[in-house]
Amino acid sequence: MKLIIGNKNYSSWSMRGWLAAKQSGLHFEELTVNIDGDEWGDRKQAMGEVQPSHGKVPVLWDGDTVVWDSLAILEYLADKVGRERFWPKEEAARGMARAMVAEMHSSFLSLRRELPMNVRRRVAIEDLTDSTKHDVVRILTLWAEARARFGNSGPFLFGTFGAADIFYAPVVSRFVTYGVGVPGFAQAYIEAIWEHDWTQEWIAAAEDEEWVIEQYEVMPN
Amino acid sequence: MKLIIGNKNYSSWSMRGWLAAKQSGLHFEELTVNIDGDEWGDRKQAMGEVQPSHGKVPVLWDGDTVVWDSLAILEYLADKVGRERFWPKEEAARGMARAMVAEMHSSFLSLRRELPMNVRRRVAIEDLTDSTKHDVVRILTLWAEARARFGNSGPFLFGTFGAADIFYAPVVSRFVTYGVGVPGFAQAYIEAIWEHDWTQEWIAAAEDEEWVIEQYEVMPN
Repeated sequence: MKLIIGNKNYSSWSMRGWLAAKQSGLHFEELTVNIDGDEWGDRKQAMGEVQPSHGKVPVLWDGDTVVWDSLAILEYLADKVGRERFWPKEEAARGMARAMVAEMHSSFLSLRRELPMNVRRRVAIEDLTDSTKHDVVRILTLWAEARARFGNSGPFLFGTFGAADIFYAPVVSRFVTYGVGVPGFAQAYIEAIWEHDWTQEWIAAAEDEEWVIEQYEVMPN
Repeated sequence: MKLIIGNKNYSSWSMRGWLAAKQSGLHFEELTVNIDGDEWGDRKQAMGEVQPSHGKVPVLWDGDTVVWDSLAILEYLADKVGRERFWPKEEAARGMARAMVAEMHSSFLSLRRELPMNVRRRVAIEDLTDSTKHDVVRILTLWAEARARFGNSGPFLFGTFGAADIFYAPVVSRFVTYGVGVPGFAQAYIEAIWEHDWTQEWIAAAEDEEWVIEQYEVMPN
């Protein structure tokens, strides 16, 4: 299998697809498509690898099968290796985990716009807009409920590491790098995600990437 | 099981959740929460049924288990009745179906904004914005590929009716009611969806609803 991903520093959806591939336990190659610079040109160059997704990452190739979108990739991998590796066994927990993942997939647009993932840069945000505050509160509410009701067996949302953690990991990165203040239970969860081996591997790779966009940002349009 | 949905005329995500419940073959009750009028007030009134989703529909209650978001509901039901009822058996087809559903779930914002679902009202749209045209072309491309590669066994995207059809049914409704011109293969697919018993049942119920928002629309703010 081959996973096509974007820049590790910025591409939160790639991080989800990559964590899902890690969680599957299957062997996969990584191919990075530069999402900086001339987006379409660079992406299209990647030998048609991202053609089926219309240039978006992540994309998973499994022989002739192509699956794009991080959630579809996760589910496709769960089909291959068994649902239990990704989703809680117990129905009520699995129902909530599925709902939380779907909500992350379609929502929190304000948070995603205002606090774009930027793994290696620390920026203390003082004033969040009301809609982003609303997103933060909603996320903390979901985390609190998952942890309280279903998180007894470990430090992750539903105890052991799974799909919900994979989907909220880029949110953890935002909370850390933008210094979003959170209550103690959430801080403990954030640390569990941040210290996870795969997060650390992703962060280290992000640190090593060329700092392209930072230069772009200080240039006039 | 109890499915909480919104107005049948307008709530495209409710339609997806409802079609998923139908496809499961399981018995479910429907409870309609009025999404017209004073949104928050009306929704909150519904005895806390939509509290876990923060007031959004659809929501599925299965005993004490609550699942919100149409995609999570579909997957939760697939967990209960077996994946084959919703997803193609063959890997390449299933990979594409999962990707198409996930893309519908997170994307096509321009189409969704510009052509909101309105089952009973015919409005011929002359000029679409470029971003909505882009969405239409992307959808037709996906439909064409699914039909050509995997649609041999029947008139639906992957042959037999399944998750991808459930997710694109509200798009079919938009193409019909806004008179969006489509090529022949897509017209045949649209007719297959439109004539499906469940679509007909949904449309009939939408026709019977009180026409609340139409009145609101001609009133000043």
